[in-house]
Amino acid sequence: MNPSFLVVADGHCTSPAGWRAAGVVCGLKRSGAEDLALLLSDHPAVAAAAFTANAFAAAPVQYDRDLLAAGRPVRAVLVNSGCANACTGPKGLEDARAMARLAEQTLGLDEGEVLISSTGRIGVHLPMEKIQRGVELAKAALAPDGGAAAARAIMTTDTRPKNLAVSLIVDGREVRIGGMTKGAGMIAPRMKPLREPQATMLAYLTTDAVVTPDFLQLCLNRSLDASFNRITVDGDTSTNDTFLALANGAAGNRPLDARHPDAAAFQAAFTFVAGRLAREMVLDGEGVTRFVELVVSGAKDDAEARKCAESIANSLLVKTAWFGADPNWGRILCAAGYSGVALNPDQVALDYGDTPIVRHGQDSGVPEAEQAEAIRKREFQIRLDLGAGPGAFTIWTCDLSYDYVKINADYHT
Amino acid sequence: MNPSFLVVADGHCTSPAGWRAAGVVCGLKRSGAEDLALLLSDHPAVAAAAFTANAFAAAPVQYDRDLLAAGRPVRAVLVNSGCANACTGPKGLEDARAMARLAEQTLGLDEGEVLISSTGRIGVHLPMEKIQRGVELAKAALAPDGGAAAARAIMTTDTRPKNLAVSLIVDGREVRIGGMTKGAGMIAPRMKPLREPQATMLAYLTTDAVVTPDFLQLCLNRSLDASFNRITVDGDTSTNDTFLALANGAAGNRPLDARHPDAAAFQAAFTFVAGRLAREMVLDGEGVTRFVELVVSGAKDDAEARKCAESIANSLLVKTAWFGADPNWGRILCAAGYSGVALNPDQVALDYGDTPIVRHGQDSGVPEAEQAEAIRKREFQIRLDLGAGPGAFTIWTCDLSYDYVKINADYHT
Repeated sequence: MNPSFLVVADGHCTSPAGWRAAGVVCGLKRSGAEDLALLLSDHPAVAAAAFTANAFAAAPVQYDRDLLAAGRPVRAVLVNSGCANACTGPKGLEDARAMARLAEQTLGLDEGEVLISSTGRIGVHLPMEKIQRGVELAKAALAPDGGAAAARAIMTTDTRPKNLAVSLIVDGREVRIGGMTKGAGMIAPRMKPLREPQATMLAYLTTDAVVTPDFLQLCLNRSLDASFNRITVDGDTSTNDTFLALANGAAGNRPLDARHPDAAAFQAAFTFVAGRLAREMVLDGEGVTRFVELVVSGAKDDAEARKCAESIANSLLVKTAWFGADPNWGRILCAAGYSGVALNPDQVALDYGDTPIVRHGQDSGVPEAEQAEAIRKREFQIRLDLGAGPGAFTIWTCDLSYDYVKINADYHT
Repeated sequence: MNPSFLVVADGHCTSPAGWRAAGVVCGLKRSGAEDLALLLSDHPAVAAAAFTANAFAAAPVQYDRDLLAAGRPVRAVLVNSGCANACTGPKGLEDARAMARLAEQTLGLDEGEVLISSTGRIGVHLPMEKIQRGVELAKAALAPDGGAAAARAIMTTDTRPKNLAVSLIVDGREVRIGGMTKGAGMIAPRMKPLREPQATMLAYLTTDAVVTPDFLQLCLNRSLDASFNRITVDGDTSTNDTFLALANGAAGNRPLDARHPDAAAFQAAFTFVAGRLAREMVLDGEGVTRFVELVVSGAKDDAEARKCAESIANSLLVKTAWFGADPNWGRILCAAGYSGVALNPDQVALDYGDTPIVRHGQDSGVPEAEQAEAIRKREFQIRLDLGAGPGAFTIWTCDLSYDYVKINADYHT
């Protein structure tokens, strides 16, 4: 099947119609870089979301979860970097509420029409005067091509902004899906979708399509395991992970729901945008020099395949071996072996790209230099078959370099 | 209670009576350092053991498990470093058997009287000629003070040998417990004791006491959670982890069992030796600059406390913060928060040594410089109370430094 969408050149979260955004400096980052992003829809927007499963969910996550439970449309999202507003107690929740109120008042919106996100250091209170000044600056800077600036303003240790937009046809009209995201450490999002039962990654998908709330949430839920919930940089699941999708209906199509003839095309485009942004997040992970797609198959079921893939992807010995382009496959089997999943040691097979590495649980006999060659790349695929069943899962991960240690030993000081 | 034992000056695994050992060069290590250790008892020795729970348990682990299931006394242990003999298929098991046979023939022992261990690279076959030559050299080098040489020969990335011996009185006679161990990476042993239902750490405890097999295994089982199973360097549970205890009865006391009047004293001394060696293993872990005792309390039960402690101790962000002496407590709470255990965010308390860091889930207000001072040490304690129950667990762990990455990115090449 050919994809039924096109990638928009230099697209971002305000590429869809009826969206404006801004990214400004409000003084939260010592570096003096942009640290406040505002995203505004000209029309009320249907929202779908997933948030961190961390027991210390940050104040803005708690605020958004409560607000979205009401199921009403929203108009804007205000995001600060440089301070996570997590583990900040009752005052943190008050600050989150006040942050939303500030945006609503400044933009002339009703209470409950602004969602908020924060990312940065845990345990520190938001400097509210700076936020206030920043919201006014952001309002003044709002622009139809402001998506790129907003993506810069949500960055923390990211080295580059991550933007994307695609275009597709729904009911004969052009519809766009845009998005932005940030990583780059504390990245192992395992988000629970809202409205089913329930990273600091932040991701925002915008669209001008008319979408029913249930179908938008369905698109988001189905995209999760093929995007943000399949990545891990360092195995640390943040208190602030947030993935929001907002549909403002500016395209005027007949409402997209599960029975709409273009539902599958929209869903495929949605998953593509989420997946591509998630991939970009790993490629720009802290200190990352190699991107690895790890496919685990032959597990008892998909859940065990995932457990095994996470064990390998988060193994320090595996990640440091990748950094050194060391084909040391024993570390991969070892991590599978302690993951606690069912496997058949005598049937295990491992491949680095097209190079067979392990057959029947033993070295395939391919010369070591050739094994090493297969992983001396910026991006490569590893496939592990456990020989124990039909379960499979794909995870996107990376190596562990000196720079990861440097960034995180020095982050605070 | 005062400990009822004394530490033997410069003690090691041949400090107890009736034990001899050797450590020799057989050519497995490129460095040319000692790589084959032999430990011999003058008398048949009762054995107790625990082995890795890794699904890819190495050939020597499989061999020892089968042999010990028979419950017969043994005479010797032969250990090589430089090659793990793991993921080596049927030939690996044959080599393991052959390694035991070589030792038995060379030492004039019966079949089934020699236990074997291997540590080093996974997936490589043992060079049996080297082992054969090495066993002969080792036999010739056997000496009553050979424990120190044996401890050097089992090292891989360890920077120093780890030896200990204690002396205590049983039935009015001096009894000794000696031990040696090695780490230093792939260290997160979660060993299952033999003979209950079932790390590359290796540890060998010797004693000249007369001990019943059941009581020796009981001592080993009870020591596990206070020693090797409470440590983690890198979270990677090896295919080769082995903990053996051997009692040769040279001291001639009445057999120690659970009802013996000195049972408690013996058990305390046993746990002390195992605990001290485990602690030394973390202190000598790959690239380690700080040792952390992490005490988690207030969990629903001990199992949840352990799960939470492991989540924190294996968090890259926590470990790199420790390396940088960064008091960033948010990373610790974050790792507790994603561990999946029950906790009460508003009641969580955290202390670095005697310095209160978090109270009621928020910053205690102690100035940051003072927070940092509390962890700018070679060794410190961290206490986290989850406010959710009576469960507790203590884990010993360490920071993550540039050197860890260097050692493991370069290990192979």
